[in-house]
Amino acid sequence: MYGAVIHAPGDVRYEHREDPRLQQPTDAIIRLTASCVCGSDLWDYRGINPVTQPTPMGHEYVGIVEQVGAAVHNVKVGDFVVGSFFASDNTCEICQAGYQSRCMHLEFVGAGGAQSELLRVPLADGTLVATPGMPDPDLVPSLLAASDVLGTGWFGAVAAEVGPGKTVAVVGDGAVGLLAVLAAEQLGAKRIIAMSRHASRQNLAREFGATDIVEERGDAGVARIKELTGGLGAHSVIEAVGTQESMLQAIRSTRPGGHVGFVGVAHGVELPGEELFYAEVHLMGGPAPVRRFLPDLIERIWRREIDPGKVFDLTLPLSQAAEAYRAMDERRAIKVLLTPDGP
Amino acid sequence: MYGAVIHAPGDVRYEHREDPRLQQPTDAIIRLTASCVCGSDLWDYRGINPVTQPTPMGHEYVGIVEQVGAAVHNVKVGDFVVGSFFASDNTCEICQAGYQSRCMHLEFVGAGGAQSELLRVPLADGTLVATPGMPDPDLVPSLLAASDVLGTGWFGAVAAEVGPGKTVAVVGDGAVGLLAVLAAEQLGAKRIIAMSRHASRQNLAREFGATDIVEERGDAGVARIKELTGGLGAHSVIEAVGTQESMLQAIRSTRPGGHVGFVGVAHGVELPGEELFYAEVHLMGGPAPVRRFLPDLIERIWRREIDPGKVFDLTLPLSQAAEAYRAMDERRAIKVLLTPDGP
Repeated sequence: MYGAVIHAPGDVRYEHREDPRLQQPTDAIIRLTASCVCGSDLWDYRGINPVTQPTPMGHEYVGIVEQVGAAVHNVKVGDFVVGSFFASDNTCEICQAGYQSRCMHLEFVGAGGAQSELLRVPLADGTLVATPGMPDPDLVPSLLAASDVLGTGWFGAVAAEVGPGKTVAVVGDGAVGLLAVLAAEQLGAKRIIAMSRHASRQNLAREFGATDIVEERGDAGVARIKELTGGLGAHSVIEAVGTQESMLQAIRSTRPGGHVGFVGVAHGVELPGEELFYAEVHLMGGPAPVRRFLPDLIERIWRREIDPGKVFDLTLPLSQAAEAYRAMDERRAIKVLLTPDGP
Repeated sequence: MYGAVIHAPGDVRYEHREDPRLQQPTDAIIRLTASCVCGSDLWDYRGINPVTQPTPMGHEYVGIVEQVGAAVHNVKVGDFVVGSFFASDNTCEICQAGYQSRCMHLEFVGAGGAQSELLRVPLADGTLVATPGMPDPDLVPSLLAASDVLGTGWFGAVAAEVGPGKTVAVVGDGAVGLLAVLAAEQLGAKRIIAMSRHASRQNLAREFGATDIVEERGDAGVARIKELTGGLGAHSVIEAVGTQESMLQAIRSTRPGGHVGFVGVAHGVELPGEELFYAEVHLMGGPAPVRRFLPDLIERIWRREIDPGKVFDLTLPLSQAAEAYRAMDERRAIKVLLTPDGP
């Protein structure tokens, strides 16, 4: 098969790779219908995470089950499935509490490289969720979004305890931030403030339910949020960037007793303890337990209540993976969907 | 009147001070029945917080209302009252949400120095809670504990979402840590692990409801908590120290999806963002909104269901305030109760 492999920062190649094989009786092999490039892939692409050897890329996927191990019972060959970037047994005490991203038997599905034609998914029973049937093609982007960015934005909103009547602010206008706006709207927020200075992203934020846009960043952004909330700050703030500035912006935009849900993968963040102490806000975040939300998200997509697939503003064949990375790196695209090249 | 004044690190004097007077129509003046020395007073005593001028000390108090301003309606002259170290209106949006320690009109009651004979309490209507009647003398220490250390330990337990069936660990064996054990027991925890290496404090922890004692600290302490919890960590961890080591010990002792309630006043703490991200625990803490809990705590004390006053293992007349500080600084006493010297 063929897939995307990163060789060095800025150097992603579409190349021949060995077909994945069942390694454990709990594995499944799926033929990918679509995959995509994640904001977190750019940490490697930009050399912020070290690239020490050629590494298959991609951890977001939807596809059709092609093979299952002998111990797999919840999905069968021919099912259309969605899974998370983390494989989880979904039965351990941590999974049962809803934290599948910290499953006691956690594996990183992305190790197999989902920007490819075939993917091995460990712990298939716990990880994969089958759709009610074969999806209409226009649903595929949304189902793919559920695999990570929608699930992550949704977790951010849940971690920030978004709910009816609340004022929510979202720091970050990437796909995750935009889908956190969508999640906040679905979870009943009264007012949703999106922080963005890009017209196309502002528009999508509004489409997803944002009621206000704040263009300022840092302290000026915090001041503007305070201004919009009677001096108090938002009830719920979702952080979807992962930098020191964005974390402090999120914490400082939250009212005392409010909640910060942080889902941007932290890079170089150090939280000052005294500020945190006197801020008196709730903090919860980390890698999203997407699996917790998948059944609900698939249902909402299937009923066409939400259209998270709109974050894909560029579709390319897998063979043009290099261009997909470039487009996202240069912020020409919010998120790029990749489809197999065909025979 | 007379009261305790700190002049420099290690130099606390019992000296004449001017009687406090009503400054606002919302003030009350109370005659103190008892006061005490707080672990946080030691930050000044030890020179960790700078002492730049002679400063009246003390912020924990119970007493009898002696005078009220014209706008005070909820307490009257002659009432026995308990209040928090923070004065709060108890009516603003933040107070109504239960975060009176971040009231929009917050004042620090301790500015008046509660280790004295009389104390001015601002925002008396929102701050003070009257007991059902004049307390029996043996209830006074417990009511005094409610003013801060019990309320703070209780908040730690609530912030850590302690509840029935849960395993709780408490980092810190000062009065707050010990009363967090009591709070955890009252809130229905199934298992309570107290981290302490002092026999007398271990005994009191057991009396308050601790089921296990862990003597190890730092990484060894974390390993022991993991060992006691099937490798997972505790559901709820209460941090009652405020140092880098204790914060990391608390975070690392918590299972994914679990809750850390931190109430030790943070000094020199920097939380590494990446560790926090992958720990995937809830963090909540800060100065306790004691006022939220006071009516409930007073009721439990009045019904003699709890005896938090046991944390006072030394009682001295106010004139011996200097010795009270020494005893706590040298850890000869867990907590010292101070009574007026009388005429």
